[in-house]
Amino acid sequence: MSFKPLEWRDNKLIILDQTLLPDKEVYLETADYREVARAIKNLTVRGAPAIGVAAAYGFALGALEIQSGNQVEFTLKLEKVSRVLSASRPTARNLFWALERMESVVRSIGSTTQIKKLLLDEALQIHREQLKSDVSLSHYGSAFIADGNTILTHCNTGALATAGYGTALGVIRQAHQEGRQINIIATETRPLLQGARLTAWELKQYGIPFTLITDSMAAYFMRKGKIDLVITGADCIAANGDTANKIGTYALAVLAKEHNIPFYIAAPTSTIDLSLSSGNEIIIEERSPEEVTHIRGVRIAPEHTPVFNPSFDVTPHQYITAIITEKGVIRKPFGEGMQKFSGLK
Amino acid sequence: MSFKPLEWRDNKLIILDQTLLPDKEVYLETADYREVARAIKNLTVRGAPAIGVAAAYGFALGALEIQSGNQVEFTLKLEKVSRVLSASRPTARNLFWALERMESVVRSIGSTTQIKKLLLDEALQIHREQLKSDVSLSHYGSAFIADGNTILTHCNTGALATAGYGTALGVIRQAHQEGRQINIIATETRPLLQGARLTAWELKQYGIPFTLITDSMAAYFMRKGKIDLVITGADCIAANGDTANKIGTYALAVLAKEHNIPFYIAAPTSTIDLSLSSGNEIIIEERSPEEVTHIRGVRIAPEHTPVFNPSFDVTPHQYITAIITEKGVIRKPFGEGMQKFSGLK
Repeated sequence: MSFKPLEWRDNKLIILDQTLLPDKEVYLETADYREVARAIKNLTVRGAPAIGVAAAYGFALGALEIQSGNQVEFTLKLEKVSRVLSASRPTARNLFWALERMESVVRSIGSTTQIKKLLLDEALQIHREQLKSDVSLSHYGSAFIADGNTILTHCNTGALATAGYGTALGVIRQAHQEGRQINIIATETRPLLQGARLTAWELKQYGIPFTLITDSMAAYFMRKGKIDLVITGADCIAANGDTANKIGTYALAVLAKEHNIPFYIAAPTSTIDLSLSSGNEIIIEERSPEEVTHIRGVRIAPEHTPVFNPSFDVTPHQYITAIITEKGVIRKPFGEGMQKFSGLK
Repeated sequence: MSFKPLEWRDNKLIILDQTLLPDKEVYLETADYREVARAIKNLTVRGAPAIGVAAAYGFALGALEIQSGNQVEFTLKLEKVSRVLSASRPTARNLFWALERMESVVRSIGSTTQIKKLLLDEALQIHREQLKSDVSLSHYGSAFIADGNTILTHCNTGALATAGYGTALGVIRQAHQEGRQINIIATETRPLLQGARLTAWELKQYGIPFTLITDSMAAYFMRKGKIDLVITGADCIAANGDTANKIGTYALAVLAKEHNIPFYIAAPTSTIDLSLSSGNEIIIEERSPEEVTHIRGVRIAPEHTPVFNPSFDVTPHQYITAIITEKGVIRKPFGEGMQKFSGLK
């Protein structure tokens, strides 16, 4: 793998700008937490697990720039840092999970200098842990993939979207590394084309055979019997297993059910939010109409066309065959495994 | 309505170039049937009923350019005209239906001059009849739309796609004209964005309220209970009611069923092919990979990305609530009504 989506170097966060892929490989280098928040908001870095890691580093950058040695002032300033970072995107659970971990470190005993050090250690630890989670859940998930399978995936859930290996795409990479002959059907994933731009770019680098389709073609391939399983990532999983993920995921889950195709979610437990009893409580981000009316800067609809642009949808747990995490596979009824694997360890 | 999608004037066919909409309103003027075939192939004119009308005019143009008064030579040359036109696109039933009607006129008794005249009359008659069909089926269909309904439609099935009024969009126009307050959800319809480019453009002109969404968002709106019915056009309907239409239609039909939303097809009987016992026999056109990897000339995927690009899918009749034609509404079991309304009059 020749690229590093997120890297900490010389007290700076280096972010591969995903908005410019696959055309250009440009890295953003910043020591400013506000710029990290902006990078999350404008999708320079995207994918729930990657957003979590970036936010942790952002929090550490926010701490490092505080001059005052006064504990109260330090804590107040970090509350602001947290507010700015948490306002970047509303749906990705991993963002809040990472910020909660960082905030709990702020409450440690020690000088502000010591706490700064602890915060940076925590961010690095979150990155390492999440990368380990990617690898672990990919191993669990690859057991679901048989030799000769064709796998449909949506959006981008590879190294770019995560701590550096992948969730749904991590499972696919792992199966490929274990020598299974597999074929990927990658949906382009409108509006922002993460499938066409990013998943295609990653799969080419890994040498995994794939075919790119528009989102509207998935059902055609299912009907033809060409899809053995569907696997996607997640942005937020409620306590009952209801899962928010990139818009279009719910349709794929319904279609998979209609064609008796298993539908898997692959996500680290940092994506689970036990405080939400069901998907109805998940906040769905709505983004700018221009994401629909323009593609890569080119207008595709008449001026002043009314648009609604929800970035995610919720797949009710009934449509999900299993949820693959770094701690193991959560099977139905999901509630139990969800409690066991996340909050209550 | 300020535009004329297809017009016969001074022995020429004038075609509104739909590939340039909504940016530019440019008309192609031609007396060459080969150019008509090219215009169908490259989607200058598109939509199954419009393709049928254009092909009829193309056939008449082919006849007009024949100098020879020899009947055998005349007939042989027209066979070539028919071959060229019928090779333009494989799925639209109306294309073959129109050519069959024109061919039967060639077998009339009379001089080549007389037959040329009959052929032009037949093309004009097909255009008039198909426009009457649009209006008639729109009246039948509007009975399914209640005040306050929100209607999801796919691709473009308005004046542009037909003889000049519309099929699915004709039904919507009719309900609007009858004073019902309706709302349209228009899918953008990748790869070629007929929804974003053409349906949005038409709906703006008719003053019908609408919202544009990506294809992947339809399920989100259905789940929220925001869609009262789905209505689309058709490119080919088999004897059992299985219907080929723009890629993505089948997914919408499955999603509609899952959410207990009625799913209607609106098409003239010229779209029905009784020689096909089921949708399995419908030939599905596959078009260039560039339609997926590029949007309006801009590349959206890495170079050499493998693509599969079927332009249509087949919705099995089980998913269709009713088929709305100019002769009335065909209800389940479709076989009967299909026989009654099309071939066997």
